Amino acid sequence: MRALNETHDRGLRSWVDSANSGATDFPLQNLPFGVFRREGRNEPFRGGVAIGDQILDLAAAHKAGVFAGEAAHGALACTGPTLNGFMAMGPAAWAALRLALSRALREGSPMQPKLTACLVPQAQAEHAVPAAIGDYTDFYASLHHATTVGRLFRPDNPLLPNYKWVPIGYHGRASSIGVSGQSFPRPAGQTLPRDAQTPVFGPSRRLDYELEVGIFVGVGNELGERVPLDAAEAHVFGLGLLNDWSARDIQGWEYQPLGPFLAKNFATTVSPWIVTLEALAPFRTEWTRPAGDPQPLPYLESAENRARGAFDVQLEAWLESAQMRAARSGPARLSRTSLRHAYWTVAQLVAHHTVNGCNLQPGDLLGTGTQSGPTPEEAGSLLELSDAGKRPVELGGGESRTFLQDGDAVILRGFCEKAGYARIGFGECRGTVRPAA
Amino acid sequence: MRALNETHDRGLRSWVDSANSGATDFPLQNLPFGVFRREGRNEPFRGGVAIGDQILDLAAAHKAGVFAGEAAHGALACTGPTLNGFMAMGPAAWAALRLALSRALREGSPMQPKLTACLVPQAQAEHAVPAAIGDYTDFYASLHHATTVGRLFRPDNPLLPNYKWVPIGYHGRASSIGVSGQSFPRPAGQTLPRDAQTPVFGPSRRLDYELEVGIFVGVGNELGERVPLDAAEAHVFGLGLLNDWSARDIQGWEYQPLGPFLAKNFATTVSPWIVTLEALAPFRTEWTRPAGDPQPLPYLESAENRARGAFDVQLEAWLESAQMRAARSGPARLSRTSLRHAYWTVAQLVAHHTVNGCNLQPGDLLGTGTQSGPTPEEAGSLLELSDAGKRPVELGGGESRTFLQDGDAVILRGFCEKAGYARIGFGECRGTVRPAA
Repeated sequence: MRALNETHDRGLRSWVDSANSGATDFPLQNLPFGVFRREGRNEPFRGGVAIGDQILDLAAAHKAGVFAGEAAHGALACTGPTLNGFMAMGPAAWAALRLALSRALREGSPMQPKLTACLVPQAQAEHAVPAAIGDYTDFYASLHHATTVGRLFRPDNPLLPNYKWVPIGYHGRASSIGVSGQSFPRPAGQTLPRDAQTPVFGPSRRLDYELEVGIFVGVGNELGERVPLDAAEAHVFGLGLLNDWSARDIQGWEYQPLGPFLAKNFATTVSPWIVTLEALAPFRTEWTRPAGDPQPLPYLESAENRARGAFDVQLEAWLESAQMRAARSGPARLSRTSLRHAYWTVAQLVAHHTVNGCNLQPGDLLGTGTQSGPTPEEAGSLLELSDAGKRPVELGGGESRTFLQDGDAVILRGFCEKAGYARIGFGECRGTVRPAA
Repeated sequence: MRALNETHDRGLRSWVDSANSGATDFPLQNLPFGVFRREGRNEPFRGGVAIGDQILDLAAAHKAGVFAGEAAHGALACTGPTLNGFMAMGPAAWAALRLALSRALREGSPMQPKLTACLVPQAQAEHAVPAAIGDYTDFYASLHHATTVGRLFRPDNPLLPNYKWVPIGYHGRASSIGVSGQSFPRPAGQTLPRDAQTPVFGPSRRLDYELEVGIFVGVGNELGERVPLDAAEAHVFGLGLLNDWSARDIQGWEYQPLGPFLAKNFATTVSPWIVTLEALAPFRTEWTRPAGDPQPLPYLESAENRARGAFDVQLEAWLESAQMRAARSGPARLSRTSLRHAYWTVAQLVAHHTVNGCNLQPGDLLGTGTQSGPTPEEAGSLLELSDAGKRPVELGGGESRTFLQDGDAVILRGFCEKAGYARIGFGECRGTVRPAA
């Protein structure tokens, strides 16, 4: 905990000037991991750490001999095109590299001359998905989202009886996960027009985003061996932003009885940076269940889980239309909420996922499901914000949306703020809808 | 087609004697691909082809210089621990290696002396999953299974209105896929006892198998680009057997609204051998829809799809209890059906999966869903055979089952037989239930 507290000290300043601005997502106290290369160069992707408006190239820093001992082992594991090897090393290795990075990037560090040569401006970088994602699971951890969406899909039966007992999840598609900057054609598929008996085929007319947090698995577990609740966070490398693009009209027709499939597997976008649980430690907050709700079954309940609490990550969704880009008017914010409203903790999701012996592997991605807060304005999708298309969302400049139009970019943002602590940001997760192929 | 016909000639005999028995699954006309190593040796897994009771070691054969031209390129791609590289090469490469193998293993081949040194007895081999499976999708392509199971889960609404329009599928878990010989502990989870209001936690009491065919993707497609129906089979490397183990009691409580999750992701078993579509070519059979059923939407309908037809792969499920093993009495057959009863063709599954732009990758696995034939005895799961546990299935020797017991091994078998053609077998897909952890 000494090292943990040291890396969070608000008084710490970096010799990278831009990291000392109160507005940056990436102060010295954050140090999120990603993979990158300089744009337009035919060079390999490798691990990097965001600091201010720069990226510290971990391959270059390792080669320069900046790190020693366990931190050097960790940095070496970040020199390739994915972070899976580092993720597999576990919390002690993650903490060792974090502490070494904090010290090396601090004002007065003797490493400054060597590390200055290892910086790449973020404006000149392009990113890849930070891990080879073996499996992607999406949960459904917002009670508010589940209730609102359930009312739209099943008016007579909005919240199913299992919701408050089972952290509902399903498997998603790993191959179509892209990093921020991804664009994709509007998906086509079968939909059932209102009052029709037979489906029609064509481009989705109810294309939506979903504002989620992505949980990257660090250490895995063996097939057949569950991860107990109180050990679960040691298996989590960190959190990022995730947009689970959804074609609501395709979803409505296909999703029974086996769940969403083509409605969601055409694209999923993640942010380039993974913020470690250590960086988020100061932003833990109370996690409670609404009065009268059942206590979780014993494998999902512990004093430690309650004491650790939720993560108070502020989440925002913004929309930038083609018109806004042309006018350089900037995006419009659609909504804002916090991960603290999730009905299940990150540890509960991991414990539930493995309670049957299912094996997680380093780099696996778990989505939290759409994060919607308790009020309608805090909803994490257009389906909710527009009341299933019945109430257009005003964007300003004469524009409004029920669902997404071609050319729309959706930008997710996340950050933690708290008195006495540096702001910890997630950067952005941006994806753009192209016209149907 | 000359090469295709040549490799199917029933008169062909191999210098590997065991391949000439009418009973073998692996005559010269089959030549399925897998990965293996000699058991108990600390040697790498590499590609192999089954021939009689032997495996031709493709790494050794390539090194011995047996192949030339395109066949040599293909064999080189089979020398590593997965077949993904070979799968990505496409139908011309697959056919070239198949033809070269057929000629080299034929009686009178001048390659016999060199290749004899490249044989490993199957009895001395162990296998791995033949591909690195990036994504695993499971379909629901048996109308008979969907109707019977639907009646059990939703008595008032057995077959949903989308079934005859949408090849229903969902994403499965890739990490827990194992090869024949896999064993796993009985999964634990939440279940809702009959007439109870709150769930309980414990080992599944309704553990089941599902008799399926696995479809291995060869050539992938780019994100955003669909695979047209008539091009779909060129993206398929071959077929194997697949057991989609299922915990029915967990499934019943968790599966709404997002589909099965922990009920199925604790283990999935595949057979070691992948039988190529070329090997199956003589066993195509008529594919028709029941009179009165809707014609598929245009992206799922073509004259070529109808002309190519279904695959008449005979499928069997067997159960070997601990008592049977102790008594050496051999397994009991639970049921037998054929893949020809599937409601959707393999090509339709691929075309549907990609119609929204979802990208398939070499080595991806598509399950057909449980294959149940039109009569109750042809059902591909205990859930169906036992009428949801109400009617025990007699196994002989005083044993019966509603669902699986600890120590039970389920063995899936598949084969094609037709007058004038050599029998093409799939080998077996075996998995064993261990007691709960």
